[in-house]
Amino acid sequence: MPTEAQLQDYLAYLRFPSISADPSRRPDLEACARWLARKLGAMGFEARVCATDGNPAVLARRSSARRGAPTLLIYGHYDVQPVDPLALWRDPPFAPVVRDGFVYARGATDNKGQTLAHLLGTEAWLAAGHSLPVNLIYLVEGDEEIGSPHLGAFLRERAAELACDGILVSDTSMIGPGRPAITTGLRGIACLDLTVQGPATDVHSGVFGGAIANPAVELARLLAALHAPTGEVAVPGFYDAVRPASAEERQGWRDLGTVNADLLRGSGAPALAGEAAYSAIERTWIRPTAEVNGLTAGYQGPGSKTIIPATASAKLSFRLVPDQDPDDIAAKVKHFLCDRASRAVRVSVAYDHGGQPYHANPDTPLARAVRAALAAVFGRAPVLVREGLSIPVVAAFKAVLGRDTLLVGLGLPDCGAHGPNESFPLDHLDRGIELHQEILRRLTA
Amino acid sequence: MPTEAQLQDYLAYLRFPSISADPSRRPDLEACARWLARKLGAMGFEARVCATDGNPAVLARRSSARRGAPTLLIYGHYDVQPVDPLALWRDPPFAPVVRDGFVYARGATDNKGQTLAHLLGTEAWLAAGHSLPVNLIYLVEGDEEIGSPHLGAFLRERAAELACDGILVSDTSMIGPGRPAITTGLRGIACLDLTVQGPATDVHSGVFGGAIANPAVELARLLAALHAPTGEVAVPGFYDAVRPASAEERQGWRDLGTVNADLLRGSGAPALAGEAAYSAIERTWIRPTAEVNGLTAGYQGPGSKTIIPATASAKLSFRLVPDQDPDDIAAKVKHFLCDRASRAVRVSVAYDHGGQPYHANPDTPLARAVRAALAAVFGRAPVLVREGLSIPVVAAFKAVLGRDTLLVGLGLPDCGAHGPNESFPLDHLDRGIELHQEILRRLTA
Repeated sequence: MPTEAQLQDYLAYLRFPSISADPSRRPDLEACARWLARKLGAMGFEARVCATDGNPAVLARRSSARRGAPTLLIYGHYDVQPVDPLALWRDPPFAPVVRDGFVYARGATDNKGQTLAHLLGTEAWLAAGHSLPVNLIYLVEGDEEIGSPHLGAFLRERAAELACDGILVSDTSMIGPGRPAITTGLRGIACLDLTVQGPATDVHSGVFGGAIANPAVELARLLAALHAPTGEVAVPGFYDAVRPASAEERQGWRDLGTVNADLLRGSGAPALAGEAAYSAIERTWIRPTAEVNGLTAGYQGPGSKTIIPATASAKLSFRLVPDQDPDDIAAKVKHFLCDRASRAVRVSVAYDHGGQPYHANPDTPLARAVRAALAAVFGRAPVLVREGLSIPVVAAFKAVLGRDTLLVGLGLPDCGAHGPNESFPLDHLDRGIELHQEILRRLTA
Repeated sequence: MPTEAQLQDYLAYLRFPSISADPSRRPDLEACARWLARKLGAMGFEARVCATDGNPAVLARRSSARRGAPTLLIYGHYDVQPVDPLALWRDPPFAPVVRDGFVYARGATDNKGQTLAHLLGTEAWLAAGHSLPVNLIYLVEGDEEIGSPHLGAFLRERAAELACDGILVSDTSMIGPGRPAITTGLRGIACLDLTVQGPATDVHSGVFGGAIANPAVELARLLAALHAPTGEVAVPGFYDAVRPASAEERQGWRDLGTVNADLLRGSGAPALAGEAAYSAIERTWIRPTAEVNGLTAGYQGPGSKTIIPATASAKLSFRLVPDQDPDDIAAKVKHFLCDRASRAVRVSVAYDHGGQPYHANPDTPLARAVRAALAAVFGRAPVLVREGLSIPVVAAFKAVLGRDTLLVGLGLPDCGAHGPNESFPLDHLDRGIELHQEILRRLTA
């Protein structure tokens, strides 16, 4: 279990309502960044809160005493997802509570708990009187949950200062409790807003119903057309750039066995669904998707309101795999939707943001040290997996700094990231702190 | 133009935010009912605010001095539709303003303006020293916009007290400015709520996307299946009970000419749509429809939130024509939706309320008096039309009191009923007051 001081740091960090999607939370994000910089400063780092065109980024560096020591950059994000629907939270999302060995709060896993485990690991390492075997850079940003729109520019502007030999990120999941993993692939993303406009205002469905198109019906038609009956995405050219996984990779994943059932249990859905030719984990790891993240139209209050709504809109996101390109997919989707739209409505498609998919080499010196450290801490060699989520910054690191990112998740598949009642096991905070020191120990040797 | 006192009565009536769909507005509905009863009391009516299982109904009676005089019941409703989206209102919906001869407020047309025209007509008739040629009953209810769920019971309980020779309702539209109409047919309605449940809570679309069904996608599929590509409703048996309009009726409507264009202009939609075999007015008058009145799923705030929503829901309403039955249609729709639902989600369909379609005889003594009065006031004989909207109480009057209802609309097709910036021409208030007196004059003769 973590020490009382470590736990208090964690709870303090979780109390900042640092929702990057909500512009009114800007002061909370700034306060959270200052808290982090103060913490790193107290650990002997040269730590700054750096302005960006979005929320500030925290950048901290502490050099190794060893001449010519390699540099390790640890990346995380202090911003979090929105909290609605708030009514489904058992406790207020920014008043963290500890219950049965878990901490419940927005950001508990994604990404405050995982980032802080590294920080507290460095703190413990230094407190024990060890010296750093590597120059250590912490970069913790505040725009990850809205697609890191300004981090590329930030990396380019400070490329010299951020030059490193490898990057470590803990923003992914383990296979399950006690089953460590290193993630070699991530899905990318393309987010779009689709709006269907019909009458100029909401109109009476008795007076106009039957004679004009209903935007909510037209929206449903467009969304229903996104998938073929087989579950595949029906947008022409959508799969053109998909690189198939090797037979060897797919065999490795078949050995994971219970992951399918775990995944299902974690969601509470009545049954698994998706492309029949792939296992459940393959559907989330190596297959692209089309999802509707939100729907808005007409009257949503109690009772009924007999209108034809003026507009109906959907938030869409497409998870992408190597070598799909978000801009290319966004253009194909936009063309597909506009092409199918009825002339009796006006359809607009806005491309919100995109992130590249990623695939990395797990056999670098840093990767070997991390794999050995994971095996030591968890008593079990990590499995080489992929993850279905998107971390746009990983592609940016590759493009700007020319380095691979090692993804060492400490979360659990059912931790509720992005949903209500997000949680993180205190044991994983503790093992994360230990893991960080094991990595430093192995890099010392 | 109405007198200053008449205008002030109208504005006072419009200031009550009497939204029946919103339970928190109950005190405003009660205050509105008391205001109406006081107004009728001051006109020499025996007026009461009557409790129902919903919002109270105002019931007022003033007998004719003539022995054996027939009884005319005038029905209206003081409740109004919800006001969202509030942002689209030019003025606050319950702070009526007069601009360019129009009054803008929620309820201006539907139904406060039209009901009040009759009240003020009675007031003016009595103020001029005339005696009533008929026993006059006013029944103004507070639950019309939520389907009049308690009015049937109210009518049955007070059937003797409400016994009458004919019913007059102004809750429909004219063909256009200066073109009076009497409505002989109304569409009925069946309102349902459709909810699709997937995961137990919103889950991360990166972690789960591809392996579980997305409720918003499944909802879209179900909604898209409601219509055939030809525009017809695809629910099996939906059209079984539809009584075709006569060739004579259809010929009469073809002569209305510009109504198609007026209808389109009134909605602001880019083009008309619907069943090719019918004209635009026929699609709204004699053809049933399936409409989506609202959509709710997942994240609807600024930016993006990459979740698979736990639930997605739609508010559905089906406009019905003679001789469709709302309960039968609701059952068929429910079966259709549940039958088509994926086993990877849970689908529930709740039947909210229904109202019977209606068709009436326009050749009764009351109808002849009203047609003559309309011709006198507007200088043009009224057209016998149908309307696409639903007034469930009309079917209840027929069933309980055994009397036809004469629908004499004073609204305009583009008055914004149920939408933002609802309006009513002051001239129509004035002509309505005059019309009411013309009817009494003809019934006196």
